[in-house]
Amino acid sequence: MNSNDSLDTLAAVLESRKGGDPETSYVARLLSKAPDAFLKKIGEEATEVVLACKDASAANSAQARQKVVNETADLWFHSMVALAHYGLGPREVLAELERRVGLSGLDEKAARKAQGRETESKH
Amino acid sequence: MNSNDSLDTLAAVLESRKGGDPETSYVARLLSKAPDAFLKKIGEEATEVVLACKDASAANSAQARQKVVNETADLWFHSMVALAHYGLGPREVLAELERRVGLSGLDEKAARKAQGRETESKH
Amino acid sequence: MNSNDSLDTLAAVLESRKGGDPETSYVARLLSKAPDAFLKKIGEEATEVVLACKDASAANSAQARQKVVNETADLWFHSMVALAHYGLGPREVLAELERRVGLSGLDEKAARKAQGRETESKH
Amino acid sequence: MNSNDSLDTLAAVLESRKGGDPETSYVARLLSKAPDAFLKKIGEEATEVVLACKDASAANSAQARQKVVNETADLWFHSMVALAHYGLGPREVLAELERRVGLSGLDEKAARKAQGRETESKH
Repeated sequence: MNSNDSLDTLAAVLESRKGGDPETSYVARLLSKAPDAFLKKIGEEATEVVLACKDASAANSAQARQKVVNETADLWFHSMVALAHYGLGPREVLAELERRVGLSGLDEKAARKAQGRETESKH
Repeated sequence: MNSNDSLDTLAAVLESRKGGDPETSYVARLLSKAPDAFLKKIGEEATEVVLACKDASAANSAQARQKVVNETADLWFHSMVALAHYGLGPREVLAELERRVGLSGLDEKAARKAQGRETESKH
Repeated sequence: MNSNDSLDTLAAVLESRKGGDPETSYVARLLSKAPDAFLKKIGEEATEVVLACKDASAANSAQARQKVVNETADLWFHSMVALAHYGLGPREVLAELERRVGLSGLDEKAARKAQGRETESKH
Repeated sequence: MNSNDSLDTLAAVLESRKGGDPETSYVARLLSKAPDAFLKKIGEEATEVVLACKDASAANSAQARQKVVNETADLWFHSMVALAHYGLGPREVLAELERRVGLSGLDEKAARKAQGRETESKH
């Protein structure tokens, strides 16, 4: 596969699974039980990223780093199933990430956001 | 800009923040308290994706869908901070996603993986 | 004080905070932004329990164990805020836990439950 | 079962499962793959509490409320497996909760704690 647009390719594959047979397609199965099935997986995979990262911090081996990659791939994969369910895709997410980097500087934006959240959480 | 370029650009920005001033850079701050600071954020943002998706399922408005996009962007952003900390980047994650699609069919691979996990969790 | 009394006391305190001033009461503030405010905290605290446990596994010091206790207390505390919001309390949760131990043996029940979940997640 | 000390009873059952046969005991199985096996469950169950609460907020039926109870029981159950693994128990957690209620007022303590966290997360 051309590496230019990995996420677009994956999004197209996910799109093609909509309405597929839940018995033979994992993605069709997740979508047939939307949204809870893919949301549970997002919660699970986030925890597995946390575990993999703690392990990589304790012993930064090639194997531990590959585990971080694999779990992150799982997390992004299931995020993309969620996006597909709502008629969204990676382009919207990347546009949002670009907007943050481009408009006003990545850190400034993130800092204002974090600030807003913390303020919000106090009231 | 294609998807891979967007993520590469973001990865380069994150890389440039390594060793930056935690007082002025949100990313430098997260990295200075690695790994727990960014792992907490991954846990938080995964929960916020879940909340945003449940809201979008209840009322699929443009606003609710934008919330899904924003929270997913937050989740991916903090995942990329984690990758940067371990000397990894989006290319490795995309390669893993491509490998799954390319080698043996996306669903088959995911199904075998899920099967393996479920078996594993019984023993 | 026995366990159930402790939880009952806490439940009564939470109950008394309903409708309180969000400016001065943390619990009233969480409840005034129900359910997302306390659900975010449950997601956060679960991640912090995971981090504290990984640290305790790496170095099982008194301090690391106290961290596990504190984060578990935070998780249970915010669970109890959620229960209070829905007119529920620890008695219902303890009754459910007792039911599992009492009816058919703790592990058998848990095993059947896990089995059911795994089966469910395949379809 | 006498309702006086549900959590102590459960803790004793968990203790008795230590070193048990992972083939027949779910708890022994979780403990034999410590800590990741029970930490994954804590992450999963926290997500399921979030989903159950969102459903109960959307439609506050008896069934939805029972789901909140069941998922909270699952979360506490797996928290107690974690405690057992580290030689801890519900008494330590309840003592911490009591300490917060008793010493200085529940909300004040929680507010100071939340304040500390927010400050911490900025630096």
